Amino acid sequence: MYYIGVDLGGTNIAIGIVDESLKIIRKGSVRTCPNREPELIIKDMAALASRLLSETGVSLSEVEYVGIAAPGTADRDRGVVVYANNLPFLNFPIAEVFRKFLPVKKVLIENDANAAALAEHRAGVAKGTKNMVMITLGTGVGGGIIIDGKVHSGFNFAGAELGHTVIVHENAKACSCGRQGCFEAYASATGLTNLTREKIAECRKNGTPTLMFKDADMDRVSARTAFSAMKQGDLPAKEVVDAFISYLACGVSNIIHIFRPEMLVIGGGVCNERENLTVPLSRIVDRECYTEDTAVKTKIAIAELGNDAGIIGAAALGL
Amino acid sequence: MYYIGVDLGGTNIAIGIVDESLKIIRKGSVRTCPNREPELIIKDMAALASRLLSETGVSLSEVEYVGIAAPGTADRDRGVVVYANNLPFLNFPIAEVFRKFLPVKKVLIENDANAAALAEHRAGVAKGTKNMVMITLGTGVGGGIIIDGKVHSGFNFAGAELGHTVIVHENAKACSCGRQGCFEAYASATGLTNLTREKIAECRKNGTPTLMFKDADMDRVSARTAFSAMKQGDLPAKEVVDAFISYLACGVSNIIHIFRPEMLVIGGGVCNERENLTVPLSRIVDRECYTEDTAVKTKIAIAELGNDAGIIGAAALGL
Repeated sequence: MYYIGVDLGGTNIAIGIVDESLKIIRKGSVRTCPNREPELIIKDMAALASRLLSETGVSLSEVEYVGIAAPGTADRDRGVVVYANNLPFLNFPIAEVFRKFLPVKKVLIENDANAAALAEHRAGVAKGTKNMVMITLGTGVGGGIIIDGKVHSGFNFAGAELGHTVIVHENAKACSCGRQGCFEAYASATGLTNLTREKIAECRKNGTPTLMFKDADMDRVSARTAFSAMKQGDLPAKEVVDAFISYLACGVSNIIHIFRPEMLVIGGGVCNERENLTVPLSRIVDRECYTEDTAVKTKIAIAELGNDAGIIGAAALGL
Repeated sequence: MYYIGVDLGGTNIAIGIVDESLKIIRKGSVRTCPNREPELIIKDMAALASRLLSETGVSLSEVEYVGIAAPGTADRDRGVVVYANNLPFLNFPIAEVFRKFLPVKKVLIENDANAAALAEHRAGVAKGTKNMVMITLGTGVGGGIIIDGKVHSGFNFAGAELGHTVIVHENAKACSCGRQGCFEAYASATGLTNLTREKIAECRKNGTPTLMFKDADMDRVSARTAFSAMKQGDLPAKEVVDAFISYLACGVSNIIHIFRPEMLVIGGGVCNERENLTVPLSRIVDRECYTEDTAVKTKIAIAELGNDAGIIGAAALGL
């Protein structure tokens, strides 16, 4: 038996044919081109799935279900994308429409951050845990919560918005959600990039030398800029990284106090910094979350599945 | 069949004989006197339970189990209080010791804030909900989380510490837990009292008149002082209440973003302010948590069971 996992993003649709051990046996992708009728997006999605089936020699009857991971709010019960960031889906019956183009037995849907958490829980670094929380540091901060082996997304499937918890109450940065001082405004890749830009501007103003200047064009500053300069001994860059990790540690400690998961998994591009990220992060979290009386610690781990998490999580939705 | 519910506090032990509909048919209390051997505390607890049984004519064989709600970390699986605030219990096998003094069939234990949430879920304002979160505003901010009808307390039973999530990152108040800027440091009854004292000191310094002065002795300032003066039209008191509600709304909005519970229940003495609390609170939370696309809202409600929540929640532990 096989599963089809679909990772529906604002830019690309990635699809994988996945076997019973949650290994991707073949994958492919197609541009989303989000500025068109939802039906046309789903038609391309079904065509790619169909092509991958042919290429692998898997028949439709061998496919147990199709899982779709979508950004935004996914109503699992009805198979409806209630709302999706950067996509023209509003109360869109994605499961039903997909089956019009490819008559599979079943289509299951889930929010993409939840699907990524499920993937790490079923087939990644958190395999074997009962409770885990995953945060994905990207444009925003996505959150996925697994309790007793199941995704917890709250009433109306609108919860697990870990990125939109306020950690800075005064003089706070505006968040894209409308709140001020959200975790996401500081600890996302975007947040890190903004901290970097602010520091470069400050250094320019004060005449402080910094290697980050070489990214003379502010548009070329990225979430890598500060980490990269820090590794070459740049002090202002280290200050940026320290500030970023301080905010990240604050949000991570909050999540640990709330859930005490067995494992907290961090995903997203920033994770490529590995020990440069996790060692100083754990040092702060240890201080903020544990006393001598605490026998068991939440393990902080880097996500293992990278860009495949969406496909694998989607493929695992019915397991 | 009956249940015995025990609410073990730092000052008093309250016990109730509870029937199958979770009604307390008789209750009593005894001083905890925490500065003594744990065994002696449990002996008094068992004696009171025994006396209440005699007084109600309920026989030991009619008691299905004894539930104990204790402050701190309760290991439900082993019946051990791992750690308790203000009580001399450290890895103390409370269930086993209780049965030495009163040979009941079973002793179940739970953290007191979790038990209060369970009580409101089974027999109080949140009856019939699937997912709910309760916060109790007292000396600290207690948190109880019910997911799919069950208490969620995390790995090692150490989670649901909603009070110890940081909401103020810079220039933050110290919390009793060692962190800086915790929700509890601002939104507890203690937090409100501190905000009131600070405002009184500021008014004194600036010569601003305020009705709160009548509590001339700073020791007599309580969580009621500001609400009471505000109702008489006092402006500095209104500023205190507004600030308190702003912090409370920040933490409540965070909880809603994380859990999207069907209901968020607020307990503790401050709740006696009822609409003076909930109306301005809901106004901020609505702005922070909902967009036009959000079809279903988390209902914010005041706890119904008051001081009986611990007994009822403890009695409901095995249901």
